[in-house]
Amino acid sequence: MASTVEGGDTALLPEFPRGPLDAYRARASFSWKELALFTEGEGMLRFKKTIFSALENDPLFARSPGADLSLEKYRELNFLRCKRIFEYDFLSVEDMFKSPLKVPALIQCLGMYDSSLAAKYLLHSLVFGSAVYSSGSERHLTYIQKIFRMEIFGCFALTELSHGSNTKAIRTTAHYDPATEEFIIHSPDFEAAKFWVGNMGKTATHAVVFAKLCVPGDQCHGLHPFIVQIRDPKTLLPMPGVMVGDIGKKLGQNGLDNGFAMFHKVRVPRQSLLNRMGDVTPEGTYVSPFKAELGREIHALASASKPLASWTTQQGIQECREACGGHGYLAMNRLGVLRDDNDPNCTYEGDNNILLQQTSNYLLGLLAHQVHDGACFRSPLKSVDFLDAYPGILDQKFEVSSVADCLDSAVALAAYKWLVCYLLRETYQKLNQEKRSGSSDFEARNKCQVSHGRPLALAFVELTVVQRFHEHVHQPSVPPSLRAVLGRLSALYALWSLSRHAALLYRGGYFSGEQAGEVLESAVLALCSQLKDDAVALVDVIAPPDFVLDSPIGRADGELYKNLWGAVLQESKVLERASWWPEFSVNKPVIGSLKSKL
Amino acid sequence: MASTVEGGDTALLPEFPRGPLDAYRARASFSWKELALFTEGEGMLRFKKTIFSALENDPLFARSPGADLSLEKYRELNFLRCKRIFEYDFLSVEDMFKSPLKVPALIQCLGMYDSSLAAKYLLHSLVFGSAVYSSGSERHLTYIQKIFRMEIFGCFALTELSHGSNTKAIRTTAHYDPATEEFIIHSPDFEAAKFWVGNMGKTATHAVVFAKLCVPGDQCHGLHPFIVQIRDPKTLLPMPGVMVGDIGKKLGQNGLDNGFAMFHKVRVPRQSLLNRMGDVTPEGTYVSPFKAELGREIHALASASKPLASWTTQQGIQECREACGGHGYLAMNRLGVLRDDNDPNCTYEGDNNILLQQTSNYLLGLLAHQVHDGACFRSPLKSVDFLDAYPGILDQKFEVSSVADCLDSAVALAAYKWLVCYLLRETYQKLNQEKRSGSSDFEARNKCQVSHGRPLALAFVELTVVQRFHEHVHQPSVPPSLRAVLGRLSALYALWSLSRHAALLYRGGYFSGEQAGEVLESAVLALCSQLKDDAVALVDVIAPPDFVLDSPIGRADGELYKNLWGAVLQESKVLERASWWPEFSVNKPVIGSLKSKL
Repeated sequence: MASTVEGGDTALLPEFPRGPLDAYRARASFSWKELALFTEGEGMLRFKKTIFSALENDPLFARSPGADLSLEKYRELNFLRCKRIFEYDFLSVEDMFKSPLKVPALIQCLGMYDSSLAAKYLLHSLVFGSAVYSSGSERHLTYIQKIFRMEIFGCFALTELSHGSNTKAIRTTAHYDPATEEFIIHSPDFEAAKFWVGNMGKTATHAVVFAKLCVPGDQCHGLHPFIVQIRDPKTLLPMPGVMVGDIGKKLGQNGLDNGFAMFHKVRVPRQSLLNRMGDVTPEGTYVSPFKAELGREIHALASASKPLASWTTQQGIQECREACGGHGYLAMNRLGVLRDDNDPNCTYEGDNNILLQQTSNYLLGLLAHQVHDGACFRSPLKSVDFLDAYPGILDQKFEVSSVADCLDSAVALAAYKWLVCYLLRETYQKLNQEKRSGSSDFEARNKCQVSHGRPLALAFVELTVVQRFHEHVHQPSVPPSLRAVLGRLSALYALWSLSRHAALLYRGGYFSGEQAGEVLESAVLALCSQLKDDAVALVDVIAPPDFVLDSPIGRADGELYKNLWGAVLQESKVLERASWWPEFSVNKPVIGSLKSKL
Repeated sequence: MASTVEGGDTALLPEFPRGPLDAYRARASFSWKELALFTEGEGMLRFKKTIFSALENDPLFARSPGADLSLEKYRELNFLRCKRIFEYDFLSVEDMFKSPLKVPALIQCLGMYDSSLAAKYLLHSLVFGSAVYSSGSERHLTYIQKIFRMEIFGCFALTELSHGSNTKAIRTTAHYDPATEEFIIHSPDFEAAKFWVGNMGKTATHAVVFAKLCVPGDQCHGLHPFIVQIRDPKTLLPMPGVMVGDIGKKLGQNGLDNGFAMFHKVRVPRQSLLNRMGDVTPEGTYVSPFKAELGREIHALASASKPLASWTTQQGIQECREACGGHGYLAMNRLGVLRDDNDPNCTYEGDNNILLQQTSNYLLGLLAHQVHDGACFRSPLKSVDFLDAYPGILDQKFEVSSVADCLDSAVALAAYKWLVCYLLRETYQKLNQEKRSGSSDFEARNKCQVSHGRPLALAFVELTVVQRFHEHVHQPSVPPSLRAVLGRLSALYALWSLSRHAALLYRGGYFSGEQAGEVLESAVLALCSQLKDDAVALVDVIAPPDFVLDSPIGRADGELYKNLWGAVLQESKVLERASWWPEFSVNKPVIGSLKSKL
């Protein structure tokens, strides 16, 4: 298969233009095409290429270097492009179910072109769509068709102004009125306004609104999702009782219209409740088929993976921007856009630091269960199973004495297992110590989180990543010609990541003596040195086409100064004097003329 | 003096508006007014207040929430404001010499209002102005008057497109022609274009241009500064042979017009050479009064202080933005502007990582001098004098066993001295080892820099900061009522900073056992806990007025949600439907209609 792609089929993986990078490409220890094919598979490569080519050939997606788009114009353009994605229909609803991995691939491709476009499409089709699909029932299926025909446009309205996504503090209410068989959706005050909701600012006609469900003569039943029409699809004017608007400019993703909404006793039919998790009978009795106790492991992994991924991306982009010096600070080179569009990942859908508590609490719960009930550490995805051996693991020491022995990710893997066991024990002890000193459960957790729970959660998810990476590159299906480079990448990631915990490895006694730290440091440097010649080819494997990347200093031909100079001279009025030149040349200041006003 | 300010003179330090922060302000262990007065002095407080009040009362400086200024409009506004600063004449040239600390205070005040304004004013008056003043001679004094009357407008042109501020690689030339007694300024190609020069884009009439000075029949004499007219002050049109323009939008500081220039054999009189460091006789003989060997210590300290300050600021702003969740990501709250405007500090006037080499090289040079010639460690500012005792310092260990003993910055100070000695010895040994293995001097330094030289330089400057802070808060003139809070701040900064080097403290044997790391961590947490009640009052000491801060969530009244909600509703067309609403309501997409084009 590799030969097809490497040889004849240049359309799928074409050669790069000749230029100053040729010499670096020639040094690679592997074929970038072979690695691309092994990583993605031919079908996925074709799917992505189809999307990228469609965007590149469609004038609606033309890049406009130096354009100073107003907020309104950018939002219009982003909406038009989102609509065009429906016309291309890259992935039908049927295909989504057949090839679910194509869903993140589509979002990734759109996001590489423009994060605002990916977000707008994702929030409507997938976040709003899957909320209706998975929280609703048969009576809501009619919405699905309207979503994928863009007859309605949707958003997901959980967050409120003064308490973000702290679900326990959400204050929007949905009181049931049996007389009319309606729910009354109401925002008690502006602090309970739905806020930050993507697509709500200008475009959404419908929202999945989370509100406290209350039935007459009964206590409230916690948050439930309701599908609420907020604008008339025929006019995009707000529905009666709905005050809806745009929250304004953000640091990034400005093609997306984030909005707010207040509901003044808005009546919706009983059937608006997305009733998978709980329902109300016409007479007003609350019924719930089951409580959700599934997916705790996935929740724990996701709650630490998002922080790890978003912070790693943030630091990586900043490192790249600084490594490019001033040119990284020039807007046209687009490192700023990448940074700005990634930044909200650190806080939305749960602030990173708050989410890490979910993971550390999960692990602490398992340990408590083991201590009190003698339960084994077991989880469906097996991410915690190794903890069963934690007393033995804690007795281990770092025994590697040469850099050469350290160049496989197995070394870091063993160290990470020790680290997670150590942090779990320390956190558990610290927590109990705080409780014994009279702290409430809430206080005790807060006091342990920054110093203990946070590193525990991060070390645990880093271990999981290192483990998966290690297994992936050591599987028999890896072509022999790719094993060296993938093995080095895996070891470098693992050891670099581990090196940030070196103080804890020493503190807990896993490391002792000067040599341990030196070996770890030298191994990282040795791997960097080994991978240097592969660096350009590795970028070639993951880079999108030049059109999508849209960065003069980042083009595949490597002619960064020519490209940069050319792009600067293409900008509007670059050599013209400013229109306000007489403000310098004619209207001269009288020095100190306003001093008497001070 | 304190009573005057605290009691009667509410104009200088007025009370804050009542609100939800009252309770937190009441908890402070000290008077914020007393600390403000101790830190700044009454004269400086008045000076800053004069500037802030002038800006607040002048409509030209009115804040325009939600305004979506075009690049050209923003640059015009920033120029007009810069001109207005000359009309206010807050600080005359004479005052600058009399009260030099008012110069950074003025820049700080303007920068708190808008970094672009501070940069524009600073680059013209101080960077360009002091380059002419300190590199020129009597014959250039005529320019100084024109600068401070804004008859000309200046910029500082060192950086070139393809080699940034690597001064050795600068390729612009200045050949002397004795026949006409002129220098010929020339850019050999576009890669040698001056690039990134602040004020050059649209406004500068004159530039201090750095070029290689060459005289006939002689080798070139390295970089020298020339004052070159690049535009006609009467028209702002470029001078013959000068191609000058704007490099376009940046990630921040967009009120400042950064530009480029290419010189095509531009002739300037012999007297254009700023001749303090070297001159050319009318006949074409190069003469130099002396070589610059002064200021090595200041250079070493500055080369590490800039990286420490810019990275600390960057991380601090990012931490604040994330701590504010989504609201920190909303443009109107201005954490993005602070981040974007600080960001170039990491790379301009020398990339941080490159600059750190200057500092580590300085320290390594001193050690080599000591090893080979038995020289003492001595420097004018005494920042290196402690190194004389380095063998004894390296024998020390961390002996503190209780958190209470750790709550003074003296503990961190001792640890830092050990750390710098340790890193200096390790770097020196590693460097010599690399050289013995056949690396050239350049290669050897490169191989040691990331792992050794970089942490050495940072630890050295952190030690310097910790030492100064420690001395400042322990001096007898500190009022007794402020000693506790300042002592805690000093200890917290020192220990927090030190804690990032814990792995090295263990690795080198200064720390051993679990307790050392635990004590350090617990001391940081204990100090945070002690300082929590002082946090709002500490911010009150350094915060600019609300008008200058211009952030709804940051106003002194603490009514963050009311302020945010109010500001959102003030934005343009916030509740209106988008002008392009028919693109959703009327022009519906035909799903898959373009699929055949794929």
